[in-house]
Amino acid sequence: MEERKELCDIVVEALENIGVNIEDLVVIVYDLQRKYNEDISMEDCEENLLKVFEKREVINTVLTGLAIDKMVQEGKFPEPIQSVIKRDDGLYGVDEILPLGIVNLYGTIGLTNFGYLDKEKPGVINEIDQRKKDGHQVTTFTDDILAAIVAAAAARIAHGQRLQEENK
Amino acid sequence: MEERKELCDIVVEALENIGVNIEDLVVIVYDLQRKYNEDISMEDCEENLLKVFEKREVINTVLTGLAIDKMVQEGKFPEPIQSVIKRDDGLYGVDEILPLGIVNLYGTIGLTNFGYLDKEKPGVINEIDQRKKDGHQVTTFTDDILAAIVAAAAARIAHGQRLQEENK
Amino acid sequence: MEERKELCDIVVEALENIGVNIEDLVVIVYDLQRKYNEDISMEDCEENLLKVFEKREVINTVLTGLAIDKMVQEGKFPEPIQSVIKRDDGLYGVDEILPLGIVNLYGTIGLTNFGYLDKEKPGVINEIDQRKKDGHQVTTFTDDILAAIVAAAAARIAHGQRLQEENK
Amino acid sequence: MEERKELCDIVVEALENIGVNIEDLVVIVYDLQRKYNEDISMEDCEENLLKVFEKREVINTVLTGLAIDKMVQEGKFPEPIQSVIKRDDGLYGVDEILPLGIVNLYGTIGLTNFGYLDKEKPGVINEIDQRKKDGHQVTTFTDDILAAIVAAAAARIAHGQRLQEENK
Repeated sequence: MEERKELCDIVVEALENIGVNIEDLVVIVYDLQRKYNEDISMEDCEENLLKVFEKREVINTVLTGLAIDKMVQEGKFPEPIQSVIKRDDGLYGVDEILPLGIVNLYGTIGLTNFGYLDKEKPGVINEIDQRKKDGHQVTTFTDDILAAIVAAAAARIAHGQRLQEENK
Repeated sequence: MEERKELCDIVVEALENIGVNIEDLVVIVYDLQRKYNEDISMEDCEENLLKVFEKREVINTVLTGLAIDKMVQEGKFPEPIQSVIKRDDGLYGVDEILPLGIVNLYGTIGLTNFGYLDKEKPGVINEIDQRKKDGHQVTTFTDDILAAIVAAAAARIAHGQRLQEENK
Repeated sequence: MEERKELCDIVVEALENIGVNIEDLVVIVYDLQRKYNEDISMEDCEENLLKVFEKREVINTVLTGLAIDKMVQEGKFPEPIQSVIKRDDGLYGVDEILPLGIVNLYGTIGLTNFGYLDKEKPGVINEIDQRKKDGHQVTTFTDDILAAIVAAAAARIAHGQRLQEENK
Repeated sequence: MEERKELCDIVVEALENIGVNIEDLVVIVYDLQRKYNEDISMEDCEENLLKVFEKREVINTVLTGLAIDKMVQEGKFPEPIQSVIKRDDGLYGVDEILPLGIVNLYGTIGLTNFGYLDKEKPGVINEIDQRKKDGHQVTTFTDDILAAIVAAAAARIAHGQRLQEENK
């Protein structure tokens, strides 16, 4: 428990290190769910997002994805895969497979949310994606990881109270 | 080969029986891919869509999904699942799992396209979904099946010439 | 809550109607997990299995799969898919896609457990599969559904106490 | 085409660098498919395995997985994920998600083959896994990547001539 709490903090810190605040993600969760539920509050969204961070498989996936981008940024991956990941070729695909470890845990709503966000790239997801396009930073896995986190949090809200009871 | 050709025709016919023409789907494929490739033509889109229909797993998934909706429409499924499918509860989820048998074959682009179309429901996909909401027709699986077909065709174009060579 | 409890009972009853007892499944869960954890008891396995039955997406998937087999058994599905499902062609595949709605919820351990059980078909899973081969009963979806339930329960045990805390 | 051929050679070379020969994998494909098709030859198995290596998504997934293990072996990943990957905790899971990018392309047979091989670990897959357990080498992703390659090749054979025609 103690250890898990620490890992969760490490995720929040890892995101902050690349300039992504929890609030940036909460806003997207809110916009995504508002159309289905007018009564939802920012607080609900933040609470559900932080619950997603407590799952070990989520933590492991986030840290692995961010670490790959960091290694590639530092030029440490062997060629030719170093260059493939760096330019995030449209056919690369591994960056969209990895987040399935997050969204699958939240059922099909998680999966379809992820596909939607991966295409629309709202808010900070687009901002992160732009850094890659500008050549400033390798964010090949990071934008998809963020989309998956948001997709999972929104799916968690959709399942709502029901899931909270059923998952016990 | 002969047999497969016939099954493909059965799919086209099955779709026409519920008022969905190939052209309705081709238009969505075109709109989806135009932003990535300005040179694409309606003919390319139709050709790729028909290629999707030739895969046995696609044919089987389409026919199974349409058959379930038809059975439920006729009130033949046993309760309580008859009612659950009929009202397509937001947490039902099986209708979004089934199409994975189609889109997974086309890599992650197929999967993310599907998630996007499932949320946006452009053109005939929305029209089919409305019939359900109007209570006229059970289309619980049908709208997701259509989204998957379009997603697969668009992914096939994205992989383009490259995939055509690689898939041989 | 009340309603969910009832749906869970309907699942147990639906399985008993085709001659599958909870105990038949508990034994497979036990055999599967014993190699990883010597201290596990039959009671642990049964408890985890019943917890799996409480998830709405699991209930919906089980009832849908059993209902399809029942409809096909009664010859109610339209041709040509009626015959395809009845003979469970090796390339049919939809019967293995449907259970992903169950096992994906339990992470990758659920998924790999499912693949293993689908090939090995221990105990009652094989028995159910034989009925199909003998021509007595359509069990195209049923054997895969049973494999998925067992795979999910075993994955739930593997995640153990940790998951119980994390899933809250 | 030229470029793809080169990437394919890089995969074969990358596997040989960690002491895995194509023949080691061909044997497992053969053992897996022999029970379904007595007429199959080692040559068929090798041919199908090499066809799997020609798909860009396969190449990218293999090279990414092997590169992660190499980076972790050299202690280059940031903590705490460096230690998590190195000891391949039973709940890590990302190493089983990544290969879905390979097996999903070959339908549900690919997926269930993968789950089976991941548990049974025949031949060189077990050998690679043992190196990790002996502490000699980080092979967290490598054993799952090998299982996925074999699963895909066996699924390709299962689909057989039919798929070869349908995939065009």
